[in-house]
Amino acid sequence: MPKMTPRTLSGFMELLPAPQQQMERIMQTLRETYALYGFTPLDTPVIESSDVLLAKGGGETEKQIYRFQKGDADLSLRFDLTVPLAKYVALHYNDLTFPFRRYQIGKVYRGERAQRGRFREFYQADIDIIGDGKLSITNEAEIPAIIYKTFSALGLKRFRICVNNRKILNGFYAILDLTGKATDIMRTVDKLDKIGAEKVAAILQNDLSVSEESALEILRFIGTGGSSQEVLAALETYKGRNERFDQGLEELSTVVRYLNAFGVPEENFAVDLAIARGLDYYTGTVYETVLLDHPEIGSVCSGGRYDNLAEYYTDKQLPGVGISIGLTRLFYVLGEQNMLNPDLPTAPADVLILPMTEDLTPAISLATRLRENGVRTQLHCENKKFKQKISYADKLGIPYVIFLGEDEISAGVVACKDMKTGEQTKLDPAATIYRIKAGLDSLSRGAVILER
Amino acid sequence: MPKMTPRTLSGFMELLPAPQQQMERIMQTLRETYALYGFTPLDTPVIESSDVLLAKGGGETEKQIYRFQKGDADLSLRFDLTVPLAKYVALHYNDLTFPFRRYQIGKVYRGERAQRGRFREFYQADIDIIGDGKLSITNEAEIPAIIYKTFSALGLKRFRICVNNRKILNGFYAILDLTGKATDIMRTVDKLDKIGAEKVAAILQNDLSVSEESALEILRFIGTGGSSQEVLAALETYKGRNERFDQGLEELSTVVRYLNAFGVPEENFAVDLAIARGLDYYTGTVYETVLLDHPEIGSVCSGGRYDNLAEYYTDKQLPGVGISIGLTRLFYVLGEQNMLNPDLPTAPADVLILPMTEDLTPAISLATRLRENGVRTQLHCENKKFKQKISYADKLGIPYVIFLGEDEISAGVVACKDMKTGEQTKLDPAATIYRIKAGLDSLSRGAVILER
Repeated sequence: MPKMTPRTLSGFMELLPAPQQQMERIMQTLRETYALYGFTPLDTPVIESSDVLLAKGGGETEKQIYRFQKGDADLSLRFDLTVPLAKYVALHYNDLTFPFRRYQIGKVYRGERAQRGRFREFYQADIDIIGDGKLSITNEAEIPAIIYKTFSALGLKRFRICVNNRKILNGFYAILDLTGKATDIMRTVDKLDKIGAEKVAAILQNDLSVSEESALEILRFIGTGGSSQEVLAALETYKGRNERFDQGLEELSTVVRYLNAFGVPEENFAVDLAIARGLDYYTGTVYETVLLDHPEIGSVCSGGRYDNLAEYYTDKQLPGVGISIGLTRLFYVLGEQNMLNPDLPTAPADVLILPMTEDLTPAISLATRLRENGVRTQLHCENKKFKQKISYADKLGIPYVIFLGEDEISAGVVACKDMKTGEQTKLDPAATIYRIKAGLDSLSRGAVILER
Repeated sequence: MPKMTPRTLSGFMELLPAPQQQMERIMQTLRETYALYGFTPLDTPVIESSDVLLAKGGGETEKQIYRFQKGDADLSLRFDLTVPLAKYVALHYNDLTFPFRRYQIGKVYRGERAQRGRFREFYQADIDIIGDGKLSITNEAEIPAIIYKTFSALGLKRFRICVNNRKILNGFYAILDLTGKATDIMRTVDKLDKIGAEKVAAILQNDLSVSEESALEILRFIGTGGSSQEVLAALETYKGRNERFDQGLEELSTVVRYLNAFGVPEENFAVDLAIARGLDYYTGTVYETVLLDHPEIGSVCSGGRYDNLAEYYTDKQLPGVGISIGLTRLFYVLGEQNMLNPDLPTAPADVLILPMTEDLTPAISLATRLRENGVRTQLHCENKKFKQKISYADKLGIPYVIFLGEDEISAGVVACKDMKTGEQTKLDPAATIYRIKAGLDSLSRGAVILER
């Protein structure tokens, strides 16, 4: 029979079993952490009607969307989890209780140009808090705590959560009488890291006709450094000149004030007036998160406050705040940077049982007992040489191998080899299970990400 | 602004938060149970190249497939998890260790006619064991144990795992000299439950030209009842007349022999010679699982042994055995049958904290402490009346509400109300956490499915 060469589409991540186990561990950590903060899991369809999904229309993403006909229906694959959330909240408004906190970890699709480290199918891990009409600033203050807890639980220590407030930026540009140019200015300023202050100043003056004085003030302003308290103090000097600015400053002060109570250490947090997060969607606090040893990755967790989640679907005012982790890309980068902890078990089983008798009943009964005790167990009953079976455990990294021959059965013991230390014990089944479980506990200590 | 009416496509399940929590619990139970048997999680793309996905070609499903162009690429959404597994194993053959045990819980797509209880996007939960060249019968014997453990863990007791062997059927029809008609006969016999024995006999004789004697023998054969031992004894009478039959009988005997060691109770198992599971894919043991009180649902977990997983992609012989649960449909039916345990918590949080002071620091610190102790906690800081906040906890089913006013703060205690019993305590934070965790433990006892 002629064969079709099997292949996976480029831009689609398909992991081997060991890295898949690491990915699962990350997802499980996210699920557990998000749940600690009162977020409920949600799952929405991957396919939506194109008119619903693209109600907002236009934008850079539209070209990238997977859109197609099926029968009479014009369908599209979701390109983020925010539009489906907006649809969900508008559609199920009467069945939801607000503030509505949900997390969603799901695949989204963008037909970007294939490129190393860019994915066309990728997981996003989002949380959002949606208010009905209003939403307290406390929710914005809580987000850094969730980011901190999430990345700490994954094993990271050297990261910084950077926070700014869009009202401060908009107020500041109003003070400079540059409101009409604010969007363009922010877009320019966003390139600071890439092109440097001099070029930013040149663009501001030459292309946007900002006065030299204002350009310098903008650069000085967004470059304001120091501790959170120092930045807040610097911002105080602009107070009283613009209502929006003052409101933003109060919000930012609230976020900073509660950081300690929320358990976020000083060193993992910074007020950074240079971050703006896109241009028209966000209206209050905005967030970016950088890995201190890998700034080149960019932000690994971003988001902010918005005033109108679902304005394309409903007249209801639904303000919210949310953050998103680009999980597939993060996982890829962590792998590239050699930051996935190789010591955590990725084996499909904790124990491999090698039956050494014709009648398999004793081996099977032992497997059943191990499983009843929560030990992931595989029986190896294939017709292979002993050495090949040991090599099977070795290749998969299965930490314990049990041999069960006539001698052990009649003595009521189990021969169990620790594959890492080579140590072999002959103990009764209960003691063997106890030993294995203790060993597994110590093996699975440690987090999935390892800083080097 | 004109609004787009939000809607979700028909045939696409989108759950409200409470049922979504039940669905998550089912998925988590499946993940944990599958892992106990040494299966490793896998995740493959939802989109595949059409030529790869449809290498096998033809078939009923082809019309239902979501297939579309994106740029130059002819793409399709996966319609099951078996073809992607075949592709995966053929593609990554050199990186895998055999026998390869994987589970996958993922969405698949079939553009079926929309109909109540039929879904176009649905989860399948599959396990497969793939051998390289050979695969021991022990794997086939293990499958009923996995089905039993899975459904028991979900809370079901009244279900039966029905097993047959395709070699026995093929051998039997060979003995009757009906090999050429075996496929058609099996297709007819499959309708026994729906149309009755008389009509089956009529079709066999009139449409398939089977002699009256053979038709009666077929009906007697597939109707063989009694305990597994009794059915095996009845099959013994055919022994020695066809090699394939004898081989199938030996395999079936092996499956039955090890049931007890695998922990499968007699009452949850039956040899049922009437089941055949499709027509050409399966070659050995086949499985169906029925809910005894809901036979109308049909099989909720089916599968079998096959000889060639990936013959369209590779010359390698890759025999396997697998089962699949149609999770979305099962969940839908359980809901319809009122079988989802309403007593298990579906709230997004375990505790709702109502701060009663201007300064939120003490309330936030308490939330942080609760979360550090693994208690899912939400702060309610919205500008709402006390009664509305209590109603929020009530509506969401949050089991505990904590009030934190000046009095409690200065006394170093926490007022905590059990929303179910109405009982209110004033204890220090540590004692409160202890009480809450004990309460949560007893609340989350019980399984997700409830038989009535």
